[in-house]
This record gives sequence, C-alpha cells and structure tokens, in this order.
Amino acid sequence: MPSSLLVYSPSTSSVFPSPQLLRVRLQLPFGVALFFRWCRLRSGEEEDDGCCLSLLLQVRVRRPAPVFGLPSVYVSSRSLPPLSSVRVCVFGVFVVPLEKMKIISPIIMGVNNILSDASPPNSFINLDQGDTALLESYWRKMKEECAVVIKGCELLSYVSDRSNVCWFMMPELTDAIKKLHALVGNAETDDRHIVVGNGSTQLFQASLFALSSSSSSHSPNPINVVAASPYYSGYPDETDLVRSSLYKWSGDAKEYDKNEAYIEIVTSPNNPDGSIRTPVASNRRGVEGKLIHDLAYYWPQYTPITHKADQDLMLFTFSKCTGHSGSRIGWAIVKDIDMAKKMTTFVVLNSIGVSKESQTRAAKIMEVVCNSYENFKLGSKNSELFFEYSKCLIKERWGKLREVIKQSDYFILPNFPKAYCNFTNESSETYPAFAWLMHKKDEDGVGYLEKKLKVLARSGNRFGSGPRCARINMLSRDEDFDEFLRRLSNIKEIGY
Amino acid sequence: MPSSLLVYSPSTSSVFPSPQLLRVRLQLPFGVALFFRWCRLRSGEEEDDGCCLSLLLQVRVRRPAPVFGLPSVYVSSRSLPPLSSVRVCVFGVFVVPLEKMKIISPIIMGVNNILSDASPPNSFINLDQGDTALLESYWRKMKEECAVVIKGCELLSYVSDRSNVCWFMMPELTDAIKKLHALVGNAETDDRHIVVGNGSTQLFQASLFALSSSSSSHSPNPINVVAASPYYSGYPDETDLVRSSLYKWSGDAKEYDKNEAYIEIVTSPNNPDGSIRTPVASNRRGVEGKLIHDLAYYWPQYTPITHKADQDLMLFTFSKCTGHSGSRIGWAIVKDIDMAKKMTTFVVLNSIGVSKESQTRAAKIMEVVCNSYENFKLGSKNSELFFEYSKCLIKERWGKLREVIKQSDYFILPNFPKAYCNFTNESSETYPAFAWLMHKKDEDGVGYLEKKLKVLARSGNRFGSGPRCARINMLSRDEDFDEFLRRLSNIKEIGY
Repeated sequence: MPSSLLVYSPSTSSVFPSPQLLRVRLQLPFGVALFFRWCRLRSGEEEDDGCCLSLLLQVRVRRPAPVFGLPSVYVSSRSLPPLSSVRVCVFGVFVVPLEKMKIISPIIMGVNNILSDASPPNSFINLDQGDTALLESYWRKMKEECAVVIKGCELLSYVSDRSNVCWFMMPELTDAIKKLHALVGNAETDDRHIVVGNGSTQLFQASLFALSSSSSSHSPNPINVVAASPYYSGYPDETDLVRSSLYKWSGDAKEYDKNEAYIEIVTSPNNPDGSIRTPVASNRRGVEGKLIHDLAYYWPQYTPITHKADQDLMLFTFSKCTGHSGSRIGWAIVKDIDMAKKMTTFVVLNSIGVSKESQTRAAKIMEVVCNSYENFKLGSKNSELFFEYSKCLIKERWGKLREVIKQSDYFILPNFPKAYCNFTNESSETYPAFAWLMHKKDEDGVGYLEKKLKVLARSGNRFGSGPRCARINMLSRDEDFDEFLRRLSNIKEIGY
Repeated sequence: MPSSLLVYSPSTSSVFPSPQLLRVRLQLPFGVALFFRWCRLRSGEEEDDGCCLSLLLQVRVRRPAPVFGLPSVYVSSRSLPPLSSVRVCVFGVFVVPLEKMKIISPIIMGVNNILSDASPPNSFINLDQGDTALLESYWRKMKEECAVVIKGCELLSYVSDRSNVCWFMMPELTDAIKKLHALVGNAETDDRHIVVGNGSTQLFQASLFALSSSSSSHSPNPINVVAASPYYSGYPDETDLVRSSLYKWSGDAKEYDKNEAYIEIVTSPNNPDGSIRTPVASNRRGVEGKLIHDLAYYWPQYTPITHKADQDLMLFTFSKCTGHSGSRIGWAIVKDIDMAKKMTTFVVLNSIGVSKESQTRAAKIMEVVCNSYENFKLGSKNSELFFEYSKCLIKERWGKLREVIKQSDYFILPNFPKAYCNFTNESSETYPAFAWLMHKKDEDGVGYLEKKLKVLARSGNRFGSGPRCARINMLSRDEDFDEFLRRLSNIKEIGY
C-alpha cells in the first residue's frame, strides 16, 4: 500500500510540555499516513536517547473544505506514556494512493491538551494585529537580491544630509521612495519634501504637532482631531497618548459640529473597512479644517491606483507597502517646507531621527522592486513582480473568504466597487489588508469569533463603530488564515 | 635632499570647483614636501587626459603646535590656469629630513577661495552636535567581525517575543545587553525588565509618561520635571514637545521649591559638564520625588566604573556606548514590571516598536565587544579591546585640550577627581564626551568661539546655565578637533 518513504525533516522536530492527549496538525498534501517517533526527555535535562520509543499513532485525515488548498491532517493519541516532555518529529511519511503528490516540509502546528477528537483545535488564532506574513513568500524568493550587508564602521553618525530639511534622512532612501512612487503612480513627489519617520505612526504624531503648532488661531484650547468612523484604532490612543494641550481626539468626523479648528484624518483605502475616502468634515459651519491623508494602503496589491495623490500632507509606510513591518519606516510627502521643518523637529525631539540600518534596507528593497519592473520582459511571469504577486495572493484569500461568508448564517462582508487601475492596466476591486466582518444579527461579532471560534479579532468598538463588527487581518500566516476559514466554514458541522 | 618617494593613494583624488586660489590641507607627519598633479577637466564632462599638467606648487609647512600630533600642511598656489574644475591628487611625497616618518594616507580636507595665506581657513567647524566619529577607527578595524547580513525575507513582523513585556524587543538584543552590562559591571540587570527604544530620547519620554501616568496623587496639574543645571539641552524641549498635561519642564532641580510632585532626571556622568551626580531635589519639604537615571555616559571610556548602578529606572544608549548613533537604539533597565509595561505602551503608541535591523546590528556589535574580552589573551594589545582603545583616544584628546587651555587667556575647563575603575583596574579621571568650556572673563563664550574662531559650540544658555559656558563635542572627526585646537592655540599668533 505505501508507495514510497519520504523525507525526514529535522525542522519538524519540536519539544512540547507533557501532554495527556497530543494533537499535532501538519500541512501535507492529500492522502498521506504518518509515522511519528517519540523521544522521551528527562525533566529539564538533555534528551535521553536510551528511552526512545516508536509509536504508530492513530491517524485521522480530516477532509478539508476545497477552498483551503493544503489540508489539515490531525494525528492524535490517547495512550501516551507518562512523560515529562516529548520530542515529536515526523519520522517517515508514506504516500498512500496519490503517487504524484510531493511532500511539503511538514510543520508541527501546535499541541493541545484536549478532550475530544471531534472538536476543532482549541488554540486561539490571533488575527487582531496587522502583521504582513502573507507577503513573506515573495521576499523569500528575493532574499538574496534584497540582502544588505552593513559593516561595523558604517552608519555611525546621526546626520545623513545637512542640506536636506530632513537632515537625518539618507539620500538613497529619498531617491528610492521617489522612484517607487514614480513607478506606481500613486503619489506626486515632485517639488515635495519627504520626511522619514519611525513608521507612519510617529509621522502621524509629527503631523498633529506640525499642524497644531502652526495653527493661525493660536487658540488656548487643543485643536480637535477627527476621522470618520470606522477609523483606525490607533488614532485616538496616539493622539491622546500624553494628553497634549496642542491637540485632542474628538471622535467621528461625520458627527463633528463644533465651531472650532480641527484636523481630519482621511485614510484611503480605509483601515479597517477598505473604503475609498474623501474628507467629510470639511467646511462645516464655514470652518476650514486641516487634513492628514493616511495613504498606507494606497498600493496596487490592495486597491486600484486611480490617480496620483497630490494632497498637502500624505503619509505612507513601508510596513504596508512591502510588508516589512519590523523595519519601522514611514514617510510623509509634504508640500509646505515649514510643515516639513516642523515634522522634522518633532522626529528629532522624539527620537533624534530614524534607524539608518532600516533606511538602508528600505532603500535597497524599494530599488529591487523598481528594478524588477524595469527589467521585466514581456513573456516573463507576473509572479516575479512584487505588486502583481502580492495582489494575486490577497485576491485569492478574499475569494476564499467570500466563498465561506456566502454560506455563513452569521457574518457579512462589505463589497467594493470596481475601478480601473492605471498601474496594472485592468479593472479591479479593492482587496483590503483587513476584512471588516459584520455580524448579521446585530450581535457582538468579536465576542462570537472569540468564544465560539477562538479567533482573536479587533472589536468594532475600537474603531468608533459598534461591537457588531470585527476586523480580521487578511495578511496573516497561511496556517492561521486557513484554520480561521476552516472554523468559520465548520460552524454548523461542529455544532455551534 | 628628498630621501624617498612615497605612496600615491587614489583616495586622495578629489574634484573641486574652479578655484582662484586653492588651499589644501593634508594630515601628514612632520617635515614633508609635496608634489601635486593637476588634471584639467572639461566643464561637466569626463576627465580630459590630454590636458594634464604637472605643477610644483608653492609649499608652506606651518609648524604646528606640539600638542597636535599630526601637523597641518598647507599647499597653495596663486597661479592656477583658468580651469572649469581641477582634479587634485597627491602625486608624490618626498620625506624631507625625517626618514623614520611614515606617510599616513593623505586626506584632502577642503578647498577655500581665500584671500590671504596668513588667515586661518575660514570655514566653520561644527562641534555643536554629539556625533561620535572619534570611535569610528575602532569599528573600521572590526568592520568584518561586526558585519550583519539581512536578507529580504527577514525581520518582517512587528512582533519579536510575545512572552516578553517588551514584545517588540529581540531576544538576542536582550541577551547582548545583559552580557555587556555583566562584562562592564556598570548596571544590575538581574530581575530587571529591559525596554528597547528609538534611542534613549524616546525612552526618556516613555519614562515621563510612565512615571506621570502612574502618579498616585492623580493631580490635575502636570507633574514637574527637573534636572540640576547645567542639564542636557534636550530635556526641556523633549518634555514640552507637545505641551503634555501629564508633565511639564520646571527647570533647575537645585532651585526646585514647589510643594508638588516632581520627577528629577539625574544624568551621571553629566552632559554637558561631565560631573558625577546624585539627586539634589529629593525630599525637599517632605515631597517624594521620582527619579530617572540617565546613564548614557556611564561606560569605561568616559569615566571610572565605581559601582554597579541599581536604580529603579536607568537609561542607556547605544550611541554613546559604542558610538553607533545612526542606529537609534536605547534601552531602559526597569525594576517595576508595571513601569516596564507603561513604557512599552508608550513606545508602541509612539512608533509601534523599534527597528529590527538596528536591534540585530546592536546585538551583533555588543556580542563582538563581549567576545573580544572573553577571547583576550594576556600579552595581546589593549588596542584590540573597545573600551580601552576608546578611552585611550578620548584621554589623548583631553590631554591635548588641557595643554592648549593651560596657555589660554580666555577659557578654563572643569577638573575631575580620580576614582578607581573596577573595569579597567586602574585609578582614572573622567574623560567626558563633551568639554564644558568656560570663558575666563564672564563673557559670552559661545559668541567668542563662533565669531573669533568660527567654531560652532552649544551655548550654556541651552543647558540652563549662562552664555559664559559652551559645550564642545570631544568625539568629533580628527580634522575638526585638530583644527579647533589649532585655532584655539593660535588666538594670539593670528592677532585675536
């Protein structure tokens, strides 16, 4: 029956605390049976090789829903010996009937002390934060082209370019940012000042500082900061972090009706709901508002590039552009030199500039992206191009999610109009980095996800919206996203 | 007469705009004469090899003051042909009388259109900021050992270690910081929490946030922030950056006499004056103050390590520890877990963490420093050890500066007591990263330096002190520091 013995991969070896009942999930192609080797460990000591014992475990293959791609294979045993801890590794894999299938490096997903094989794995899936793991596969392909080497004696100084308003910004990063915007066509950079920050989070605060300290009214009261709900959950907390006397959070821009100066944040595409936005609070009661355009998601993998953005103050972030969240690089494109100077002052007093290692790497990665388009030859695959590749992945996830939601009695998703993308030269929907799930029955959507499905999402409450909605990260790791879909689609099957 | 023809180094070649009178300063050992090769360039075009012309220039060797080490050699010509630009390179160097002297790679320092050979070079020397170029020579020696390679697919996530209070901090950086403090013996890290920040500047603000938002008094007024003058010029501006309602700058700790809650910053060794400090505002009128210990300069190259610091909240920075200012890495060592959590919250809301590229590199460099001590063999040279090497450089500069100041009619320097250093096992003075120059005659010290010597220093006014004092960066580039000394010692000679 077994047609061949396949790989033993040491990467599948993990040590877990003593389980009573052990459940291991592996990502494998269809139709495999598995053998495991268990190695008993002495408590707190090195591996005790003399106590190895091989067990053929009970294997159940759960047929996955067709949308999942890779199936989940569950392996469990109720009859483990009393061990202080065990080493689990995939020892051998027999392909049962499908000889064409190749084994993909198996991953041990987690071990849970659970009581019943019938229930789903009961570990929580965290889809609350905005991590960008989905985009990692592209960078794995490009890991060598994008590599940077930084020697011990490099990048010592605070200063990068004294002739630039933003004197801590490295000229190669300025150039790379301009080149990238020119390639994508999503923002005007000619005759603009670029200010780099520790993520766009810091630059958002620099913007508030610059706009409020230049307020012509010189009001003794803090200027009101508003955004249309649902708005990014970070804005209120960041605005009121140290209870500034210059500015204060004042809630939903749609409900703003004070006769006072205000700053409106326009996030487009919007986080959390993906909508394309324009200011809503402007010119009410004749009061002129100041605007911050947060364009973190105005990149072609998420939304059609319909025009070259040209607002006075625009924020972008490397995190969402390429997925390199750990680098903490954001940039502001600013028309007015005094605004750029004030924002630079903020970054100087807040952190004396921005990591040069990150600046170097961001410049390198942007260059590689730009060069791949420049060198792209007709007939090459789109999968070699970052934005096309990423869009393909995100679009595929949205397809799967919509497929599951269509069958769902509990949740609905927003729809997005199509628009022509000047970059990809095709008509396309928006495929946001987050899904804004709304409970059909006006119930607590996040509570439902957490209690019933053990899925951690961010509550609509945090976005100035009701608890009915929940924000789900669409760029999480494959295994988390697939498991989320599995739980969502299995709601009935498993008796919720 | 010339004893030997020495190197031609291509690194000495530079293109300058067309000069009328050209002045080149070279760092060379005593007693050399120089030949230059001038290559005419066509305006805006490639080098025109056919038009090379060799000129033996008028050479004047200015005998340097003995404290300078390397002398300044001035080469000038009034009879250059009318060129659009010239390429200047050291073509040959003849050692005139001193055969033992070796040529050190000559550096073309700059070209000035000046009218008289008698006046000093009239460009400004900037010794205002705290750049750490002096330490670069060590890292040039160690550039390969300290090199980091970061591939395209690495460090994508915001998260580093969810089990750590400071979840964006990389475990290898935590380990390296603990190892370094254990090596140096300058701070306790056992049973402490470490929070990483974008430089200690951000962590100073995180400290204010954490201390003021945990204020037991729940006063509606902002808590007073004080430091004994002269205090670091950044504190007032950073504290009042966005006019927080939680805290406000309240000036000199020595004059603090309000019956209100306060935070005192204790900087030791102190920036700008290098003094060793303890709190001065504590317990006045029975009010208990909160303390932030800024120990940026408590490293053995600057000051004897007399004890293992053990305060509740201590700040350190990579910039001053190793000189890598461009990395923007600081860390706080915190006793109380709630404080560490609040500081983490601040960094999250302020910038969602800290560059992982910088964290990776800082960890690597600290590891290399620690390993060099671990691998150090008796009989090896101290110059292979970072702290000894750096201390030697800084001490040498202090020696030169004190030598010049001793002859000066205009300035005095503070003196520092000797103490036994547990790290270097010797008795030593403090050799601060800044010199706190005081004008002898109660005049405007900074104005004098700027107007008479064209040296930019930071005014005592900015440190809560009078304009009589000026802060001079002691870690600037060799050429700037030497030129500063030359101007300072030549005050009489050149007719000031």
